[in-house]
Amino acid sequence: MTTRQAPIAVEHAVTVSDSMMVAHSLPRPVFGPAQALHGATFVVRATFRRDGLDDDGVVVDIGAAQEVLRDALADLTYTNLDDHPDLQGVVTTTEVLAGLVAARLVRRAAAGDLRGAGTDLTAVVVELGETPQAAASCTVRLREPGAGPVDRWPWAPR
Amino acid sequence: MTTRQAPIAVEHAVTVSDSMMVAHSLPRPVFGPAQALHGATFVVRATFRRDGLDDDGVVVDIGAAQEVLRDALADLTYTNLDDHPDLQGVVTTTEVLAGLVAARLVRRAAAGDLRGAGTDLTAVVVELGETPQAAASCTVRLREPGAGPVDRWPWAPR
Amino acid sequence: MTTRQAPIAVEHAVTVSDSMMVAHSLPRPVFGPAQALHGATFVVRATFRRDGLDDDGVVVDIGAAQEVLRDALADLTYTNLDDHPDLQGVVTTTEVLAGLVAARLVRRAAAGDLRGAGTDLTAVVVELGETPQAAASCTVRLREPGAGPVDRWPWAPR
Amino acid sequence: MTTRQAPIAVEHAVTVSDSMMVAHSLPRPVFGPAQALHGATFVVRATFRRDGLDDDGVVVDIGAAQEVLRDALADLTYTNLDDHPDLQGVVTTTEVLAGLVAARLVRRAAAGDLRGAGTDLTAVVVELGETPQAAASCTVRLREPGAGPVDRWPWAPR
Amino acid sequence: MTTRQAPIAVEHAVTVSDSMMVAHSLPRPVFGPAQALHGATFVVRATFRRDGLDDDGVVVDIGAAQEVLRDALADLTYTNLDDHPDLQGVVTTTEVLAGLVAARLVRRAAAGDLRGAGTDLTAVVVELGETPQAAASCTVRLREPGAGPVDRWPWAPR
Amino acid sequence: MTTRQAPIAVEHAVTVSDSMMVAHSLPRPVFGPAQALHGATFVVRATFRRDGLDDDGVVVDIGAAQEVLRDALADLTYTNLDDHPDLQGVVTTTEVLAGLVAARLVRRAAAGDLRGAGTDLTAVVVELGETPQAAASCTVRLREPGAGPVDRWPWAPR
Repeated sequence: MTTRQAPIAVEHAVTVSDSMMVAHSLPRPVFGPAQALHGATFVVRATFRRDGLDDDGVVVDIGAAQEVLRDALADLTYTNLDDHPDLQGVVTTTEVLAGLVAARLVRRAAAGDLRGAGTDLTAVVVELGETPQAAASCTVRLREPGAGPVDRWPWAPR
Repeated sequence: MTTRQAPIAVEHAVTVSDSMMVAHSLPRPVFGPAQALHGATFVVRATFRRDGLDDDGVVVDIGAAQEVLRDALADLTYTNLDDHPDLQGVVTTTEVLAGLVAARLVRRAAAGDLRGAGTDLTAVVVELGETPQAAASCTVRLREPGAGPVDRWPWAPR
Repeated sequence: MTTRQAPIAVEHAVTVSDSMMVAHSLPRPVFGPAQALHGATFVVRATFRRDGLDDDGVVVDIGAAQEVLRDALADLTYTNLDDHPDLQGVVTTTEVLAGLVAARLVRRAAAGDLRGAGTDLTAVVVELGETPQAAASCTVRLREPGAGPVDRWPWAPR
Repeated sequence: MTTRQAPIAVEHAVTVSDSMMVAHSLPRPVFGPAQALHGATFVVRATFRRDGLDDDGVVVDIGAAQEVLRDALADLTYTNLDDHPDLQGVVTTTEVLAGLVAARLVRRAAAGDLRGAGTDLTAVVVELGETPQAAASCTVRLREPGAGPVDRWPWAPR
Repeated sequence: MTTRQAPIAVEHAVTVSDSMMVAHSLPRPVFGPAQALHGATFVVRATFRRDGLDDDGVVVDIGAAQEVLRDALADLTYTNLDDHPDLQGVVTTTEVLAGLVAARLVRRAAAGDLRGAGTDLTAVVVELGETPQAAASCTVRLREPGAGPVDRWPWAPR
Repeated sequence: MTTRQAPIAVEHAVTVSDSMMVAHSLPRPVFGPAQALHGATFVVRATFRRDGLDDDGVVVDIGAAQEVLRDALADLTYTNLDDHPDLQGVVTTTEVLAGLVAARLVRRAAAGDLRGAGTDLTAVVVELGETPQAAASCTVRLREPGAGPVDRWPWAPR
């Protein structure tokens, strides 16, 4: 059994990053010291996946992706999440916030705001680092990856 | 074909990191200079994956995960692995050590020591960086990811 | 439903990194300011995936992987990609370059140049970071991961 | 004029790092959006400088330094700094907080809690990173570096 | 001889970072392969130093510093430096470019554009990373640090 | 008192990095668990400082600096330092090893092996990171920085 040169699938991805600075509390006994009002810089990495590339050779426009990510964080950064109207009753763990940002990016992708092939994604992944030693992520799968792009992969062996 | 807003699956993950400082040798000709007794700081990143979140909005308790990871490294750090009773006859490559740490974390997860949803994981991944330019990882898949959490995903489009 | 100790699959990977310093232009209106001749340091991370480890406990030889990666970048670094004979008419986006490097690594893996289990890979992933805030990657899947190595996994619970 | 082999001075330093997660507000118009209650993960790097090494070959005990740094952050992390009794009326900019942590470390050093040569430091530096793109630091100089240790420097050319 | 609690000087600094993507050549035999047209992402870190803090507790406004740094890179990024009118006949090594950016920041600081205490700096330092393994920096000293701020240091022992 | 545009001194520096993987023990009670034979990956950063640049616009040749650094680590990496003939009776703390590497670089600089202005340095600094959270450094000052290069600084205000 030897490594084949012909791929069975080729997937591409683009990752952009930004950060947000928020206050919040996690008011349940399970969270120990994090029950108190405290804060975090969340270092956010957003990844957009697609089977292959569009005719311009991109998954999404990196500049557009950075802008859309900044938009997704705009009403959160420099705020106390405990006071955010959309987050009343929500326990804003790092996992939950990763899901919230991912959902916002999915909506913008569906609206075509990522340009490139941004309306044809297989998944959006958002990772939030809360310290250099701890992070949480949410992967939203939007369709099964397929094998299609293999035929059009310019680097396939001939 | 356009990006759907409704996900087919939503996966979550938590990553924590730590490090260990060990001596060891890799006494087979294939390892060249690493045959000699030398050492490494392994920067360890452990990821715990689950379909969705528990009722507290977490995959596992990040504090518990950091503690369990520290435990998993405790008898290895500041030792010569060549002398470790469990590693006699084992070639302690970075890949093998990643597997060892992953197996230990799986056992602790099954025992409920990660709290949160730590008894319901789809996978545990351990990456060991040996230099800033080289790393190895082991992914232990524990069950197939499902689509279940999509229904309960609070950010799903309505 | 509880976390099982017995894995359904075990996958291993090795990652090595290097960088290349290139000039290029992206001469299409969609690329805005990047239409002009400019440049980039691409920080390259190459990952080699395999179901299990070979008898020496490795996926690929890390030293060989670093050498093969350096080779794959050798005719690109310190050049203007616009003048590269193989890239005439190619829009050298970060995504496309990640694919090019991945294809080269797949070819070398198939030729046995990675040593270890390098002729039996499930996937090769290449990520190119263009700034600390933006990266693109290409995942070339070469065969479906299987469950085989679980039996031979030395850390499996007994 | 050529590079001399004989040094005119030899300085040593040890750096340890940790982090704290705080809420705070900066209630002055000059701070724009940071006037509102928000938060930050401050990644803290503390450096201890000394002319030469003690007889054990250390500046300070790295383990002791990590412990003293953790202590210095203990009443700040997981809190709202606006409510901290010692910080009433203090504008808790990143610069000011770096100074506060540095002052606490200086006090502990003077008390001998850093072990090693920690009672004979020339400076303590504390850097607080608030995002990957922004940081502030405070350098507290405690005595002028001298040339003394050059004579005892084991690596000096003979 | 024991560590004093009373500092002889207290210095503060703020660091902000950004990046630029340029093409250039270094057309002298001494530069080997870098004689050819190639490119780089320069990861730029700019540090502003001052004896003490202003009444708002800052060295410079971090937001203003980020803006001034972006301005300093604006006519360089996405260009071929070989064609830049101000750089004709200049060998644009990483060291030289660090000096150029530093000079631009000094000019803006003198003009008061950094707000905070930005018109009273002791030094400006610019570091340009060209790869993760290589960087160059330029430190422009503008006045000797003094001991003045020690008296006004809020954390000084009493 | 306002920020001057005319510098009182301009200093330049080049930093290169590499790593070494060693075993060693620190056989004194003060070192606690590190008394046992263990190991470390030391991530090494070497900085070369000079007042100004040479006629080619460099401090030292970055390629030569990387080579000289690799040479300085060659007999240490992949070894047990306890067996090294030059280190018998030496307590090989991170601080001491930083000093050893610095001394070797100073010797090579004095020999002209760094090219560029490498025979006219003001200081050599070596930092060894032992984990992402702990490092030690040694600064060898070779001559006092002067103000000379200010006159020849191409970016000085006119």
